[in-house]
Amino acid sequence: MRATLIYGAGDVRVEDVPDPQIQQPTDAVVRVLRSCICGSDLWPYGARPATENGERIGHEFLGVVEDIGSEVSGLKSGDLVVAPFVWADNTCDFCAEGLHTSCRHGGFWGADDVDGGQGEAVRVPQAQGTLVKLPVGEDSALLPSLLTLSDVFCTGHHCAVTAGVDPRTTVTVVGDGAVGLSAVLSARRLGAERIILMGRHQGRTALGRDFGATDVVAERGEEGVERVRELTGGDGTHTVLECVGTLPALETSFGVVRDGGAVSRVGAPQYPQGPIGFEVFMRNITLTGGVAPARAYIEELLPDVLDGSIEPGRVFDRTVGLDEVPDGYRAMADREALKVLIQP
Amino acid sequence: MRATLIYGAGDVRVEDVPDPQIQQPTDAVVRVLRSCICGSDLWPYGARPATENGERIGHEFLGVVEDIGSEVSGLKSGDLVVAPFVWADNTCDFCAEGLHTSCRHGGFWGADDVDGGQGEAVRVPQAQGTLVKLPVGEDSALLPSLLTLSDVFCTGHHCAVTAGVDPRTTVTVVGDGAVGLSAVLSARRLGAERIILMGRHQGRTALGRDFGATDVVAERGEEGVERVRELTGGDGTHTVLECVGTLPALETSFGVVRDGGAVSRVGAPQYPQGPIGFEVFMRNITLTGGVAPARAYIEELLPDVLDGSIEPGRVFDRTVGLDEVPDGYRAMADREALKVLIQP
Repeated sequence: MRATLIYGAGDVRVEDVPDPQIQQPTDAVVRVLRSCICGSDLWPYGARPATENGERIGHEFLGVVEDIGSEVSGLKSGDLVVAPFVWADNTCDFCAEGLHTSCRHGGFWGADDVDGGQGEAVRVPQAQGTLVKLPVGEDSALLPSLLTLSDVFCTGHHCAVTAGVDPRTTVTVVGDGAVGLSAVLSARRLGAERIILMGRHQGRTALGRDFGATDVVAERGEEGVERVRELTGGDGTHTVLECVGTLPALETSFGVVRDGGAVSRVGAPQYPQGPIGFEVFMRNITLTGGVAPARAYIEELLPDVLDGSIEPGRVFDRTVGLDEVPDGYRAMADREALKVLIQP
Repeated sequence: MRATLIYGAGDVRVEDVPDPQIQQPTDAVVRVLRSCICGSDLWPYGARPATENGERIGHEFLGVVEDIGSEVSGLKSGDLVVAPFVWADNTCDFCAEGLHTSCRHGGFWGADDVDGGQGEAVRVPQAQGTLVKLPVGEDSALLPSLLTLSDVFCTGHHCAVTAGVDPRTTVTVVGDGAVGLSAVLSARRLGAERIILMGRHQGRTALGRDFGATDVVAERGEEGVERVRELTGGDGTHTVLECVGTLPALETSFGVVRDGGAVSRVGAPQYPQGPIGFEVFMRNITLTGGVAPARAYIEELLPDVLDGSIEPGRVFDRTVGLDEVPDGYRAMADREALKVLIQP
């Protein structure tokens, strides 16, 4: 089959790879209907050292079950399913607590002989725990929104949930990428009435307003902090959803959070150390969030996608075929595209 | 009157200062019955640059109301009261949320013309909001335990509360100082059944066991982390109560916390940056805590002190008169004394 590999910064290729096959009785093989490119894929795309052998890449997909191992129950060939961006058994103590990203028998796509998601098919370990059936057909117009349950929308939701967003909390979302916009939508869904979106790309912030942002702050750094404080009587917001992952974004987040509030981060941190010294302490700021256990949220969020009350798939603004994936990376890296959908 | 001033590292003096008087109609004057030395007083005692003029010091006291301003209601001369270590109006929005340390009209003892607690008397700003009446007499044997409501026990309690300690959580307490021991007592009071105390001073850890610690780990650093992990099936504990304030203590805390768990810190951080990078993110660790809003907790904790079901005052292992305060500092800095009670 054809699948995407990354060889180094700026070097993504679509190549022939072995067809996936059942290896463990807990596996399934899924033919990919839709995949996509994640903001986090852009970190290696920007900085990965070049190597002779490529690595499989991609961790968001939905598709059709083609084969299942002997120990997989509850699934059959032909089922349409979505996979979270970390596979997990859904039975261990961490999974029972909703922390599937720390599953005792789980792991990541594209590593340790597991396929990446940006290909024609994927061998899915721990298939029974990992895959969630979707009650739609292959031609459903909902596929893009359903695909966001694999990562981006669940990541925004995790950010809002861990920050403690509710109808009584004011919210700042730092970052107008697909995760930031998903965080806006999630905060609105959880009842927040004041959502300040920090971002400067008008097309994106316009979608942010559609998703529920009540204010947009285009300024960055100190100026952006001042602006959010002006909008909130000098105090900042109860919750801050940090959806970028850089140190400046974290600094901005601490700057706009209200005393006693929470900064939740879901962008993979691009810093080993952060500014959590005396001021953050004296203001009783909580730093929370982390890699999102998407699997924990899919069943909860699915009905709202199915009935059309939310449309998280609007973050996709370009669709490519598998052979065009390298150009999809380029377009996202150049900020031509917000988020690229792949239709293999 | 006599009061304590700090002039520099290792230089604490007891001197004559003006008697406190009502300055604002919201003030009260309190004659101090008991005060004490805080672990946080040891930071300036260890490192404060020498200056010609001393600064008033001390922020924990209980005493008797001697005078009240015209706008103070609910208090009268002769009332025995305890003061939290940050004064506050107890009516603003932050106070209403239980974050009295961010009170819009509050402040700190010993700064901006406000007396310190280590003296014969104190002018108390925002007296109606700040002071809490204690239904005991001047000769009560409960005074030491009641004094801990001013700071150290409430600080341990804040650490446990913000970490989310409950009967289902396992707990590690980092540090066997008075705050650490208070955190042990607080965690036990909140129902925790497994409490691992990290500390190496046998007298202190013995009191920790009395307070509810089920295990004591004397090892530090990597070795200490390994030991806690061994005690917890490799996983660490759901909550970690960081009661020291140093970077090694924070690193240990991240090392012993279970994935998805919380590190709460209540020791003033002696670091501008901390290790909150990729690993903490991938493990969904929350960093919480901060300076404790003691005022928010006093009414809740008071009944347990009054009925003797908890004895947080056992952290005091030495009592000095006011003139002996400099030696009290020395004894605490030299770890001769755990926590020094002052009887002016």
